[in-house]
Amino acid sequence: MSRQSVNFKLVFRIMGFLLMLEGIAILTALPFSWFYDPQGISNFKLPNGISEFYSILVSGLFTFSIGLFTFIYTRKANKNTTKKEGYLIVSLSWIVISLFGSLPFYLSGYFGSYTNAFFETMSGFTTTGASILNDIESVPHGLLFWRSLTHWIGGMGIIVLSLAILPLLGIGGMQLFSAESPGPTTDKIHPKVREMAKRLWAIYVILTLIQTGLLMLGEMSFFDAICHSFATMATGGFSTQNTSIAGYSPYIQYIIIIFMILAGTNFAVHYFILKRKFSKVKSNEEHLLYMLLIIGVSILITTGLVSEMNMGLEKAFRDSLFQVVSIITTTGFVSADYLLWPTGLWILLFLLFFVGGSAGSTGGGVKVVRILVLIKNSLLEFRRLIHPQAIIPVRLNHKPVPQKIVFVVISFFLFYLATFALGVVVMTAIGLDFESSVGASASAIGNIGPGIGSLGPVENYSNIPDVGKWVLSFLMLLGRLEIFTVLIIFSPTFWRK
Amino acid sequence: MSRQSVNFKLVFRIMGFLLMLEGIAILTALPFSWFYDPQGISNFKLPNGISEFYSILVSGLFTFSIGLFTFIYTRKANKNTTKKEGYLIVSLSWIVISLFGSLPFYLSGYFGSYTNAFFETMSGFTTTGASILNDIESVPHGLLFWRSLTHWIGGMGIIVLSLAILPLLGIGGMQLFSAESPGPTTDKIHPKVREMAKRLWAIYVILTLIQTGLLMLGEMSFFDAICHSFATMATGGFSTQNTSIAGYSPYIQYIIIIFMILAGTNFAVHYFILKRKFSKVKSNEEHLLYMLLIIGVSILITTGLVSEMNMGLEKAFRDSLFQVVSIITTTGFVSADYLLWPTGLWILLFLLFFVGGSAGSTGGGVKVVRILVLIKNSLLEFRRLIHPQAIIPVRLNHKPVPQKIVFVVISFFLFYLATFALGVVVMTAIGLDFESSVGASASAIGNIGPGIGSLGPVENYSNIPDVGKWVLSFLMLLGRLEIFTVLIIFSPTFWRK
Repeated sequence: MSRQSVNFKLVFRIMGFLLMLEGIAILTALPFSWFYDPQGISNFKLPNGISEFYSILVSGLFTFSIGLFTFIYTRKANKNTTKKEGYLIVSLSWIVISLFGSLPFYLSGYFGSYTNAFFETMSGFTTTGASILNDIESVPHGLLFWRSLTHWIGGMGIIVLSLAILPLLGIGGMQLFSAESPGPTTDKIHPKVREMAKRLWAIYVILTLIQTGLLMLGEMSFFDAICHSFATMATGGFSTQNTSIAGYSPYIQYIIIIFMILAGTNFAVHYFILKRKFSKVKSNEEHLLYMLLIIGVSILITTGLVSEMNMGLEKAFRDSLFQVVSIITTTGFVSADYLLWPTGLWILLFLLFFVGGSAGSTGGGVKVVRILVLIKNSLLEFRRLIHPQAIIPVRLNHKPVPQKIVFVVISFFLFYLATFALGVVVMTAIGLDFESSVGASASAIGNIGPGIGSLGPVENYSNIPDVGKWVLSFLMLLGRLEIFTVLIIFSPTFWRK
Repeated sequence: MSRQSVNFKLVFRIMGFLLMLEGIAILTALPFSWFYDPQGISNFKLPNGISEFYSILVSGLFTFSIGLFTFIYTRKANKNTTKKEGYLIVSLSWIVISLFGSLPFYLSGYFGSYTNAFFETMSGFTTTGASILNDIESVPHGLLFWRSLTHWIGGMGIIVLSLAILPLLGIGGMQLFSAESPGPTTDKIHPKVREMAKRLWAIYVILTLIQTGLLMLGEMSFFDAICHSFATMATGGFSTQNTSIAGYSPYIQYIIIIFMILAGTNFAVHYFILKRKFSKVKSNEEHLLYMLLIIGVSILITTGLVSEMNMGLEKAFRDSLFQVVSIITTTGFVSADYLLWPTGLWILLFLLFFVGGSAGSTGGGVKVVRILVLIKNSLLEFRRLIHPQAIIPVRLNHKPVPQKIVFVVISFFLFYLATFALGVVVMTAIGLDFESSVGASASAIGNIGPGIGSLGPVENYSNIPDVGKWVLSFLMLLGRLEIFTVLIIFSPTFWRK
């Protein structure tokens, strides 16, 4: 452990760099604004704010400038990094880009208060997909493009984070796959990050492009196709339509189902498939459980919908599968209002709120591999009771998992549940009913989007008091960054030299 | 580990012995029947069943005879016991005495179906206190006495179980207090059980008598006083009144508060107080957290009731304190309908559903000491992340807790939550709404009694479909016997030679 104080200069320099990139990203929305709403270019001021075009232009340039200024100002920062800078950089990244990324929404006036704009942006970058918009279709295309792009950028960040950075910090489900190194092996963040990131981003970009093409084949416009592909691959959930995916054809729904499943899969699995190392895929127990859960719960719900609601088999299967995949991958797209199903059926979906996607995917939540380890460990507990002297380790993909890592997995789950419970308490304290509070908290920390009660799949978050929106934004951040990354910054140990 | 098969003969012999005792216990209700409802002696048959007096007489004699027969028939059983017989004896005890203990209720016709009678009896012996009775006051006194006595007997069983038997089986929170022996030290169940049990039962009996006296000083009848004392000391919750404790004077409510607190305290603490070993009490961190939780949550709710509901301070304080103590000790008496409070206030009570009483008390739930270990361990997780090489143990009462025991505590909590979640799924599947299902499952596994939603403090369980009553009965059993004790019997390892 280093004995110097935290290298803030470097932290700021990286924030500056990210803001420059974000500024450029914001400006990519300009062509859409120019193409779909050209009158915005001649009118600077509108009744509720400044015109879309200038909201985007001003925000992009401002964000880039602040970034550039910070980057230049901190050019003398030394490159000494420890895990502490790692935690800070990760947590601050999402906060800082959300603070600036909300500017176009805020300036345009379409989102009301800054709180709303921030909630929507944090929901975007954390790939949650919870929205405060009552009428999405009335928002101009440039802003909607930026809204969907926040998902895609967030997803990119998550891939590099979960597969390259968090393992070095000793956090995240991925370390379960490298059983050799129980903790972080080095204090430095760097080595193969860039190499690894490039490959996985290439997969991410290619899958997005393929999905866009397939959606356009289903008669979706290029604009809607690219926005929905961004939201799918990032397991985000923002749609450009008020009814989310419910209004689209079965073909489009099935395409989105397939790509949600791909997005919720460990990107290392995609990599192995491309490299034709199928044995590595077959022996991946997390992927097996992920697919089993999707199929098993979908069949259960399909059966229920057919028998209890007299639904046709194809429709029942498609609705079940879509909602199950959307929830387990933490995307949050909606093709049917599951709250209209019998409680005994949507409760199965709600259990999936506490599962989440695979480790190393863009999906949020607890992650399938952690659930797998929790289940395996629990079942071994009986054998441990009967044979108290024996040492009986959890085995994952045929390798024993060090006790220490099992312990971290369990601790993570307990923190997850405690944060969820605290979220429920806060939401009820500001006046929400029990069911809505439970749904809002679980949905926010799981980066899902829709909840239950008054925050169901056809509702939105506009009516929640401001303080609730900030709390939920914080829960999204906690969930997205695997809790420890953020909370550790608040622990006294972190600041002790 | 022994290599013989399970010694069923001995298990049956012990069941026989317990049934003889239960038969005698049932007959102790006869004097109350004779005194309060003497006409029952001359009328054997009544419209809905046989008269109270003969229901009790027949059930008592039948239970005793079956017990005697089994006891004699198995007299050649050898006394070889292993942990396996221990698990079986504990689980079967509660099931068998509930099956026979429900006979007086069933025969009398006052409880409707056998399912109802069994639910009420299991609720009694597990000290839960959930009732299917719509009109308690219409049930004759002899049956109400037996109903309250099931609590008291269950409480006696729990004291000896948690302080003497479970530690030998390697289960239960009490092993946290004997940090020297991480697992069971011997395969045999026997040594100091009787000695220990005698002392603690003496405390239990004396406290019950004192409470009865104090309640009678508050103008409660002897009958109501003894019944409520049974229910208090066992942290049960059956009342003889339709309005539970709400109709009684503040004096009586305060007396019951005090004795609920005593019943939810580790009985070893009472023992140390009697022995004047106050230093042992002071350094008991579990007891400290237990008192802090009671005081802290009561103050929070009092503040809320005064400010949001304009309640008088004394009434607000008494209502808060009573409900907080009743829930944390898992008694389930009610002096105010907490569901009429704002959601943000009763949600605090609901959190206490997942805490429970102290280890070694008659209280159910997760137990305060386990929550304490979970919190301590979670907070250390940050230090472990920053210093991955250091070994940082949880310390309880200034002594390090072996990692292995911390692991068992966490596993227990996960099983508890998984069982709770499964209970919710089953309850919604049979048609209950989300909130009621969540409440019913949490209340049953925590041995509390009242729930939330349609099963709130002024409601009862009569309208739940039969299958739900059996499921809830099983949850009560699981919670009361610390889950592992029951579930281990269903594990393949248990039956492997």
